[in-house]
Amino acid sequence: MNLRASLVTICTVVLTAAALVSPGMADTGRGAGGLMPVPDKVSLLEGRFRVNESLAIAGQGPASPRAFHAAARFMSRLAGRTGLFLTQDYLESQALSDKAAVIYSFARVGKLEPNEDESYSLSVKPDGISLAGATDIGVVRGLETLLQLLSADEAGYYFPCLSVQDKPRFTWRGLLIDVGRHFEPVDVIKRNLDGMAAVKLNVLHWHLSEDQGFRVESKVFPKLQQLGSDGQFYTQDEIRDIIAYAADRGIRVMPEFDIPGHSTSWLVAYPEYASAPGPYGIERHFGVFGPAFNPTDERVYGFFDRFFKEMTGLFPDPYFHIGGDEVSPDQWNTSKAIQAYMKKHGLANNDALQASFNRRILKILTKYGKRMVGWDEIFQPGLPTNIVIHSWRGTEALVQAAQKGYQGILSNGYYIDLCQPAAEHYLNDPVPAGSPLSDAEKTLILGGEATMWGEMVTPETIDSRIWPRTAAIAERLWSPASVKSVDDMYRRLALVQVDLEELGLTHIKNQAVILRGLAGAVDVRPLEVLAEAVEPLKGYERGSQGVTYSTLSPFTRFADACFPESLVARDFRARAGRFLETRDPVLAAELRATLIRWKTNHPLVLPCLAASPALREVEGLSMALESVSGLGLEALAFLVSGKAPEKGWAEGRAKVLEEAKKPKAHCRLAVVEAVEKLVDACGPAAK
Amino acid sequence: MNLRASLVTICTVVLTAAALVSPGMADTGRGAGGLMPVPDKVSLLEGRFRVNESLAIAGQGPASPRAFHAAARFMSRLAGRTGLFLTQDYLESQALSDKAAVIYSFARVGKLEPNEDESYSLSVKPDGISLAGATDIGVVRGLETLLQLLSADEAGYYFPCLSVQDKPRFTWRGLLIDVGRHFEPVDVIKRNLDGMAAVKLNVLHWHLSEDQGFRVESKVFPKLQQLGSDGQFYTQDEIRDIIAYAADRGIRVMPEFDIPGHSTSWLVAYPEYASAPGPYGIERHFGVFGPAFNPTDERVYGFFDRFFKEMTGLFPDPYFHIGGDEVSPDQWNTSKAIQAYMKKHGLANNDALQASFNRRILKILTKYGKRMVGWDEIFQPGLPTNIVIHSWRGTEALVQAAQKGYQGILSNGYYIDLCQPAAEHYLNDPVPAGSPLSDAEKTLILGGEATMWGEMVTPETIDSRIWPRTAAIAERLWSPASVKSVDDMYRRLALVQVDLEELGLTHIKNQAVILRGLAGAVDVRPLEVLAEAVEPLKGYERGSQGVTYSTLSPFTRFADACFPESLVARDFRARAGRFLETRDPVLAAELRATLIRWKTNHPLVLPCLAASPALREVEGLSMALESVSGLGLEALAFLVSGKAPEKGWAEGRAKVLEEAKKPKAHCRLAVVEAVEKLVDACGPAAK
Repeated sequence: MNLRASLVTICTVVLTAAALVSPGMADTGRGAGGLMPVPDKVSLLEGRFRVNESLAIAGQGPASPRAFHAAARFMSRLAGRTGLFLTQDYLESQALSDKAAVIYSFARVGKLEPNEDESYSLSVKPDGISLAGATDIGVVRGLETLLQLLSADEAGYYFPCLSVQDKPRFTWRGLLIDVGRHFEPVDVIKRNLDGMAAVKLNVLHWHLSEDQGFRVESKVFPKLQQLGSDGQFYTQDEIRDIIAYAADRGIRVMPEFDIPGHSTSWLVAYPEYASAPGPYGIERHFGVFGPAFNPTDERVYGFFDRFFKEMTGLFPDPYFHIGGDEVSPDQWNTSKAIQAYMKKHGLANNDALQASFNRRILKILTKYGKRMVGWDEIFQPGLPTNIVIHSWRGTEALVQAAQKGYQGILSNGYYIDLCQPAAEHYLNDPVPAGSPLSDAEKTLILGGEATMWGEMVTPETIDSRIWPRTAAIAERLWSPASVKSVDDMYRRLALVQVDLEELGLTHIKNQAVILRGLAGAVDVRPLEVLAEAVEPLKGYERGSQGVTYSTLSPFTRFADACFPESLVARDFRARAGRFLETRDPVLAAELRATLIRWKTNHPLVLPCLAASPALREVEGLSMALESVSGLGLEALAFLVSGKAPEKGWAEGRAKVLEEAKKPKAHCRLAVVEAVEKLVDACGPAAK
Repeated sequence: MNLRASLVTICTVVLTAAALVSPGMADTGRGAGGLMPVPDKVSLLEGRFRVNESLAIAGQGPASPRAFHAAARFMSRLAGRTGLFLTQDYLESQALSDKAAVIYSFARVGKLEPNEDESYSLSVKPDGISLAGATDIGVVRGLETLLQLLSADEAGYYFPCLSVQDKPRFTWRGLLIDVGRHFEPVDVIKRNLDGMAAVKLNVLHWHLSEDQGFRVESKVFPKLQQLGSDGQFYTQDEIRDIIAYAADRGIRVMPEFDIPGHSTSWLVAYPEYASAPGPYGIERHFGVFGPAFNPTDERVYGFFDRFFKEMTGLFPDPYFHIGGDEVSPDQWNTSKAIQAYMKKHGLANNDALQASFNRRILKILTKYGKRMVGWDEIFQPGLPTNIVIHSWRGTEALVQAAQKGYQGILSNGYYIDLCQPAAEHYLNDPVPAGSPLSDAEKTLILGGEATMWGEMVTPETIDSRIWPRTAAIAERLWSPASVKSVDDMYRRLALVQVDLEELGLTHIKNQAVILRGLAGAVDVRPLEVLAEAVEPLKGYERGSQGVTYSTLSPFTRFADACFPESLVARDFRARAGRFLETRDPVLAAELRATLIRWKTNHPLVLPCLAASPALREVEGLSMALESVSGLGLEALAFLVSGKAPEKGWAEGRAKVLEEAKKPKAHCRLAVVEAVEKLVDACGPAAK
């Protein structure tokens, strides 16, 4: 057996977080170089704690199942990753034991609210591991760190010796899941909660109502789910189960009921509360639609009082999100009664009308003990500063709000539904360097949330739209601002995306499932090779390709199988860039091997196209990859040999490149620009 | 684009089911050649019904959501497979429509009980499709048939024109899922119910209690789940949800509470009902254990009366399974009180004692309106013939029972946990040819059940242990006895196993997940190549490899990633057999390509072994594949060239073959015998 030794450079100086993730740390042994998010402070020490079947864990602290449940999951995942038959029995309670080499402890049970202490310190020595949290939530966080430290060498598994002092930079680290546009069953939510816990996110923002669906069982107004959900909603028992599941992982669950717009599905059951006469049907398409609650009708507030009384009892989180975004002016502008009301009450415009609505809703939520959160649109004169502004517009909006004393959460820049690269989200800081805010004002910026809007996702594809890119956002929100090496983030993302699979997440495995679903029993590996070089259209471009998407559309096509960001394509681009700087022949050989794989792939794709009319749309994409890869190989040959191409060579190839950049099958090749750079480098004639 | 035309031989004669699946029917267009289970009667007609975006479905029949829910799922799955943006809105009720080209109808709402009419007739013509069931359950079955007919040609998707008259051979077509030994969450059960519906199985036999866990919420005796389940149980709401989900798919849910043995987990909470003093702890290991209820204690019957009163209310199925298998004699033999009781009541042995227990339980179940089902052991003198015998022992036991007037269900031969080939189950007939039973007695054999015992499976691996092999059992129980071509079954199994993935089943995709879980970010494709030629140890051999398994053991090792039956290896063996008969050079080339892939794989596996100590156990297996494949290539070269090997060649190779047959890493190579046959064919010296 040819085992490569996995020697991690051992040192005993205290490293800053940024230094920790320098390339020198990467090795087959993973060591401390696979942590994501990077901890606040890490000191590497000499030695290794050997992991074997006798490994046991025990803990002490006040009575709370959270910590020992996390310890039980830790043991189970450790056994799964190592295949070791750990001899410790199932943890049924918290108890110190002399035999346990891993000891956790915490001083008090953590509360699920912002600014709770999530810090922990972790010490790994050759003969024992201790993990101490101020709260049991800190223990949950620290166990995830320990699991990411699992390493292997010729002698077996080990944890590298070190000392970690860790705490989050921001207290609000969220993931929004929109279950209104496409419903996501309980198991989808649970496995994503596990994914969140693995990268130390702590808020599930559950977007529960939309034009396309009302997703919560109301016992007070059962027609809401009966008529507004197509039978796709969570029972109250399921909601309590999910909240408990999240709480066990130190994750808050904040509900959002988006009002007064985005509310068609409510109005199917209660058209009398709309601003125009119904009837209404569940919306099947996407966009901003006319129906809105009538803010001038007293009965509407009576309805919301009873509804929020029920829902604030169901959701224990102290924060409650009322949406408030994108209210269509249509119904308000065309209603004579509403116009008359506005005139009578001196409401100059729809913003003022919405502000008056929000004040009434705030009163209700305050009565039931909640703090109100809403999107940028709720930031209007006349509302008290105890509301929280959730910004989809940007950091400037948050700065303005903070300067007026409002707390804020950032989601602009974290729209993971837009299929942007992880790097873009990663470098988007809620409090960027050079922020005009004072230190006191900065504390009002609570953090941020990745937003998984639901237009284009189904239970089969949502995980691949969330992961692994959301891990990069999680790091931005947890780790020091100084941790910002994009290359190192991608190196660790490639490790963490595999870790995440053990939680049942489908972000990798469902690519082949979607492809097989179309191709049947034909070998889909050539389609997987094509997908390496391809990404689905980004931003809102997919919606402008002449296809009208609805909630009933199949999201099972090639674009849905492609990862939002291909790490293979990203790696190709990075290597091409480094090759152009260094002319390293090893890089040239790697690039060549990849280009040959892509260039020779098209004939192999053809049997899939023959079997599946749905796949025939990728023919052009596949041929474009063939052409571009051929061009890349030619350019590489010139660059390696040092020979100059004939005059006009590059110009002749420009058309191929332009053609290859066009969208095809709702996708784009993600390697054309890298090949273009290789072509450009072949001589001055290229431009 | 190089589309292969998919020309299905069109004929208009009525074919018997066996003729339908003859190899001539297989084509890229699938046509009627992909049906599984094979219908009772099929007449192929000329023409194709084209599938495009305007396809709509409508139905008529008495009020029942079952049929239109099935129609809605049909539309969604059809959209998913074709990528077509079907324009029909979500089906919210049953309504005939002039625009719909697919019309279903049924005369009455089906009952969920044995001998209900599940027949249907399906007619596909170029301009319309009609599906008629006697009941809505027949409609559910027929829609699955229609979906399996989906075919493609150069012009797009189509259904082949035909007429089907279909009905099941046996009325009881079940899958037992043991959630006692390893718990399986709600989503695992639901996706397997979808898989069952896809192949027309109609009974989920839910094995809900075992020594290792009590999995149902009891509100009358909550200590059962509180102390007996490690928190892993179904709430009553979840059970009702699953029963409704199954009913929507025409599937009965029969619970099993295994008594008086296999009951340690109950006795954790209620040691006073055991036959020996406790205390008891949840059993972590597997086997037959001592603890058993005390059949001589009147309080025990009081307990069961109250418990079964609750459970018979929760589970609506008319049948109720009480297990009754493998009662350990330990506690009964050593209890003086029990021995005295037996003497006093003239109970000659433990069988008689158990029979007295069963009579009491039968009385309770009868009072609550249920028919009692139990394993072979309950077939004892003195019990009335309205009980049902479920045979793990074999068809002979069923024959004996039927001759005495008892109904029976067969599971012997359908133990899918033993990782046997599909063919073995497929040829196992509940009423085999030559059965000594009279026609009247034969009707007492209700059918059979595949049994997914839970010792060695987790939520991550259970699907691959159930599917696709259970589809072969489903065909045995549904299709005419004359449908028994093993080769054709495997051809269709390869198609159906891909269809099943659309239901969320993980039987294919989790192989790579398990391998990545061990290997991390290292490319696991070489391990997948190795797994092509490998199967986990069969029968009970895995338990005798020096490792003691428990409920907490990791089932994440290489053997768990391997499919119970490798269809690639099976195909290799079949092709090797055909080559030896025909010496077809095309077959030789195919065999050669496969052998080269296997022979060159070992060096590619090494990086995985370096990264993962848990994977190092496969080194010997991988090297054995290298040797055996090399030997196969040598033999193939001799056979193709017609040259004879040197004297002693085959003898020298015998050692390699013997070594390669030995178990390694809880697996065996599944291609050694095929290579051995190639070697043997090289000359008389081989033996």
